[in-house]
Amino acid sequence: MTDVFDHPWLAGLFADPGTAALWSPDAQLAGMRAFEAAFSRALGRAGLAPHAEAAARAIEGMDFDMDDLRAGTGQDGVVVPRLVRQMKAAAGDAAGAVHKGATSQDVIDTATALAMRDTLDLVDARLTGLTDALEELAGRFGARPLMGRTRMQAATEITVADRIAPWLLPLVDHRARIAAARPRIARLQLGGASGDRGELGGKAAAVAAEMAAALGLENPPRAWHAMRDGVAEFAGLMSLVTGTLGKMGQDVALMAQQGIAEIELSGGGTSSAMAHKQNPVVAELLVTLARFNAVQVGAVHQALIHEQERSGAAWALEWMVLPPMAQTTGRALAAAIALAGQVRRIGSPE
Amino acid sequence: MTDVFDHPWLAGLFADPGTAALWSPDAQLAGMRAFEAAFSRALGRAGLAPHAEAAARAIEGMDFDMDDLRAGTGQDGVVVPRLVRQMKAAAGDAAGAVHKGATSQDVIDTATALAMRDTLDLVDARLTGLTDALEELAGRFGARPLMGRTRMQAATEITVADRIAPWLLPLVDHRARIAAARPRIARLQLGGASGDRGELGGKAAAVAAEMAAALGLENPPRAWHAMRDGVAEFAGLMSLVTGTLGKMGQDVALMAQQGIAEIELSGGGTSSAMAHKQNPVVAELLVTLARFNAVQVGAVHQALIHEQERSGAAWALEWMVLPPMAQTTGRALAAAIALAGQVRRIGSPE
Amino acid sequence: MTDVFDHPWLAGLFADPGTAALWSPDAQLAGMRAFEAAFSRALGRAGLAPHAEAAARAIEGMDFDMDDLRAGTGQDGVVVPRLVRQMKAAAGDAAGAVHKGATSQDVIDTATALAMRDTLDLVDARLTGLTDALEELAGRFGARPLMGRTRMQAATEITVADRIAPWLLPLVDHRARIAAARPRIARLQLGGASGDRGELGGKAAAVAAEMAAALGLENPPRAWHAMRDGVAEFAGLMSLVTGTLGKMGQDVALMAQQGIAEIELSGGGTSSAMAHKQNPVVAELLVTLARFNAVQVGAVHQALIHEQERSGAAWALEWMVLPPMAQTTGRALAAAIALAGQVRRIGSPE
Amino acid sequence: MTDVFDHPWLAGLFADPGTAALWSPDAQLAGMRAFEAAFSRALGRAGLAPHAEAAARAIEGMDFDMDDLRAGTGQDGVVVPRLVRQMKAAAGDAAGAVHKGATSQDVIDTATALAMRDTLDLVDARLTGLTDALEELAGRFGARPLMGRTRMQAATEITVADRIAPWLLPLVDHRARIAAARPRIARLQLGGASGDRGELGGKAAAVAAEMAAALGLENPPRAWHAMRDGVAEFAGLMSLVTGTLGKMGQDVALMAQQGIAEIELSGGGTSSAMAHKQNPVVAELLVTLARFNAVQVGAVHQALIHEQERSGAAWALEWMVLPPMAQTTGRALAAAIALAGQVRRIGSPE
Repeated sequence: MTDVFDHPWLAGLFADPGTAALWSPDAQLAGMRAFEAAFSRALGRAGLAPHAEAAARAIEGMDFDMDDLRAGTGQDGVVVPRLVRQMKAAAGDAAGAVHKGATSQDVIDTATALAMRDTLDLVDARLTGLTDALEELAGRFGARPLMGRTRMQAATEITVADRIAPWLLPLVDHRARIAAARPRIARLQLGGASGDRGELGGKAAAVAAEMAAALGLENPPRAWHAMRDGVAEFAGLMSLVTGTLGKMGQDVALMAQQGIAEIELSGGGTSSAMAHKQNPVVAELLVTLARFNAVQVGAVHQALIHEQERSGAAWALEWMVLPPMAQTTGRALAAAIALAGQVRRIGSPE
Repeated sequence: MTDVFDHPWLAGLFADPGTAALWSPDAQLAGMRAFEAAFSRALGRAGLAPHAEAAARAIEGMDFDMDDLRAGTGQDGVVVPRLVRQMKAAAGDAAGAVHKGATSQDVIDTATALAMRDTLDLVDARLTGLTDALEELAGRFGARPLMGRTRMQAATEITVADRIAPWLLPLVDHRARIAAARPRIARLQLGGASGDRGELGGKAAAVAAEMAAALGLENPPRAWHAMRDGVAEFAGLMSLVTGTLGKMGQDVALMAQQGIAEIELSGGGTSSAMAHKQNPVVAELLVTLARFNAVQVGAVHQALIHEQERSGAAWALEWMVLPPMAQTTGRALAAAIALAGQVRRIGSPE
Repeated sequence: MTDVFDHPWLAGLFADPGTAALWSPDAQLAGMRAFEAAFSRALGRAGLAPHAEAAARAIEGMDFDMDDLRAGTGQDGVVVPRLVRQMKAAAGDAAGAVHKGATSQDVIDTATALAMRDTLDLVDARLTGLTDALEELAGRFGARPLMGRTRMQAATEITVADRIAPWLLPLVDHRARIAAARPRIARLQLGGASGDRGELGGKAAAVAAEMAAALGLENPPRAWHAMRDGVAEFAGLMSLVTGTLGKMGQDVALMAQQGIAEIELSGGGTSSAMAHKQNPVVAELLVTLARFNAVQVGAVHQALIHEQERSGAAWALEWMVLPPMAQTTGRALAAAIALAGQVRRIGSPE
Repeated sequence: MTDVFDHPWLAGLFADPGTAALWSPDAQLAGMRAFEAAFSRALGRAGLAPHAEAAARAIEGMDFDMDDLRAGTGQDGVVVPRLVRQMKAAAGDAAGAVHKGATSQDVIDTATALAMRDTLDLVDARLTGLTDALEELAGRFGARPLMGRTRMQAATEITVADRIAPWLLPLVDHRARIAAARPRIARLQLGGASGDRGELGGKAAAVAAEMAAALGLENPPRAWHAMRDGVAEFAGLMSLVTGTLGKMGQDVALMAQQGIAEIELSGGGTSSAMAHKQNPVVAELLVTLARFNAVQVGAVHQALIHEQERSGAAWALEWMVLPPMAQTTGRALAAAIALAGQVRRIGSPE
């Protein structure tokens, strides 16, 4: 419990429950369960395994032995071998319809695709929310004069609307980026042992189509397990969003300085030493979150170098970095919406 | 001359003349000249300045005092004040039609947009060339058996086509990404002093439309000088492309190991100590270039935090990083095409 | 609970309980408590506050209202205002001896210094353990012949000792680096509101000396709250260590390939799809952990740009990154020691 | 010529001729020449080759065919095979005393060690110069009152000396770090083909000792070609230095804002659109350079994962990043000294 998103007190600043829920172990387990149940059913429909529906129901209804999953992950480097062993035990006579022709990467990458898809939905909705909040601000204060500042020096007079525009307009482009990238990110992974769907024989395409429909994912022509560009594109989208919000946060923190006073906020943070202070905590947080994601995006790009049919090393690097990137983005959006709501005034007092 | 792209001997490995030409000082100067000439003409057509065509012609035909530009950049942090001073001197009586209502960021960001646009064209064309080369390889060797390898261990037998697919299929997605991103990247920047186009008054939209058409750029509704998401998106595209090629390079280097021998290459590098060696130099280079861009992309994302109407600090960070990222990408594509051409065999000898 | 160090099953691979304990909320709370108790006592000894021992004992014995700490952190951006309010309430009549002349950064940075100090101790001890394990390996197998490999190609024959040396020798240098850096890292932070120790007047030096002795920290001449180089040096040390271990892991994974077979390991991971596989899971993990830290080190270097007397933005970025970097390092060392113990053979079978 | 350090006008802002000279192709060639001449002489003294002095003199006096070096680097991935071929041709009958028992990595890494050593010298001297300049500033203005600012908000009054201290005190620590790290960085690399000095037989230690003395480098017990921690430590030092200067630059830019006016500078940059502006160009540049190095340090840490006896991929990544990091550091130090000299006033006007 050292991470800031799930910490007894730092979570007060960093946590975003909505995004955390999409990347939680429960959600990951639900995603893996959904993959295996859909796979069993698709095997059944394709005539590749008997008792498929029974297997699917056993998978959907079973409890997991978490100690065993943990020990297995330490041993195997991935949770799936033990997960499947437990599923087969639960399926009993229907065990032959469990995971037959699939592999670890199918299970985990499809679960990750589900989490990324749901994160894109959440981010998209909050982008809309923030757009509304900023448009409302621009409506209230947009016409007021403001000193334009370039290179941190007074330039020429602009309006509040001009200052807000670079916080606002990229949000629309981010939504367009998300829409275009979604089919490359929210897609079924199905490849089997070395990724060629070999064990599924001539039924591979039918199984994949069935599963993609059941899971609400795109159905790409091949397994993408060794092509990580969709994952890196997702990470890039997260960081583009937080970057825009970081610019907004930096601007607000600069505007809130004594001597500048271009903004008045409610709800600033207090100090343990100075009772008079009103710290622009949320604005600074946006800068922190933007710089964090700007660093992490590099890790996911390093993981593009994913050797052969599966890189244990590059794959596990994604596991370390994607959940914090998603939570950082979710938190930044929530914080930016909150910050817009804290604004009592932008521009000169009337 | 310490940088690897323009180095007496390292350039033999790293240089890509095609991309270098797009980001060279000559190209930057041509881009800035094109901006100012188009701006003068647009001012004239809008009735905002007399002698506009004379000014444009003077700008197009003049020589620059490079020592003065260099001294001015050191003084002002940006080349434009001296560039404009020289242009005005060259325009003589038409000086009133030069740069009137524009600002440094308009000139430099528009020139950068031109370089990014041309880079996207070059990258797109080479992606097509590499796609062809890899399809040709898949056609020749694709049906041969190959040991699938996961976690660097032999898994199950696949085909050469299965190994090549993750080098090949993302190229198609990269082209789609470029097409979708282009209007957000290849766009006119026109804002004036603080970015509000204030000095252009009611003619601002007409001037912008005229210029965008003349320069072959998109015409966004506002200046984007303080919204750097298009620049960061460009950097992300570069790194996504090199990441895919880095995976190909890593695979080839692993395939070329003694004891594995899944590939046979012509033209390997020699050693100063061991005459027998055939080093997979180009394959390793692809890994280097991918890891380089995966690091640099983080710099451009840091630069998203661009305060107020212009951040001298964040802006100059882009100047340091964009040209090497573009050249790295161009070189990686050329190297990957060359590597495909070096392949004598993939898969088992027949 | 999405982070890999504290996750129901991924912790089986990533967790290092020893390091996690040093950075846990409990440890952070203990560090902050130790700071405040030592501060009260030092105030008392300097004659700056009455009832100091009573205040110190109240601080040491009290329970915290964690919900209040969390809410306060969300509000203030830092836990200390509420922490101090609770401490003052617990101290009752002795409240005047609590935190009087200190500030948030004193409390948190000193607690971080304690965690860094203890981490350096742990890392140092494990470096010794790993050195012993590798020397033992070199003792057993060092004389065996091995094919030297440069640029992933067979070069000339070396010995196993030659392959092991680059895993082993840097460990000695890392210990020397830690010893030299320790006084710059494990040091008291004491500055008061704006860092000038102003409220402590002429007793500031005496208070600092007393506290440093009580806490087992260095006593620098001034507050270091706005000089983050010690923190960045700590992060660099972590990544240097994991980098060396990543090289060892990469070598082992390459040596374990079929067709190469330069190493034989016990305890390899199994596959959900292929019963025959023995995956070099721990070796790959070392590569993952090294690449993770190599990315994170950049975040802490970005945080060197810590504006004025306190940057909320840069400071919070450290909070996000230091605990995972420390745990990554602790885990990598434990994993490398385990990997050395898994070696059944290096070099040719005899 | 797209890089900012060697650019017709951007060099006015970014170039540092002193550091550039240490990493220039000429310097690299001089370093490689020095290695080979010293090696020939050491071979001769050890009785391992006849005509050694003649070989050394030929190496020292010859001209190189640069086109051949460039073509060879493209072919071999490293310049040394062709460099040595040219040296042998120049040595004629003494060719047997050229490079016999050495390898590419010996030549290049030793030349890099020389460049790093000389850079440490330059950085150390400039740290002293900047220390003097800041002490002089503190002497002139240190007692003046200044508003302390935490979280970008006015806190309590401090003095100018308090603001300057975090710019100044870390410089002393940086010098201590450099002194401690120097023997791990400025060291001879000598290993031969696979790094075991095998071809030099029982004379290896004597040859190495002779060469280290001749070149002014440390003489480590083994070749360090596959242990890159010294290189990463060098990169970390560069970024620690620029980070401290970036904090100074950020502070100055914030102090120079209208409405704050805590500093008055001479020599600010002008604007192409606004004649009244005095931009704090050098202060912003310090921030740019700090963020650049904070990103690049990650590349060198990635290169710690240097597989087997030589990683072509990781090695070439160092080549791309070390020269700009060194120049960035040299430039930042020169700029910080210049900035200190631009200060007309810090703190309130008297």
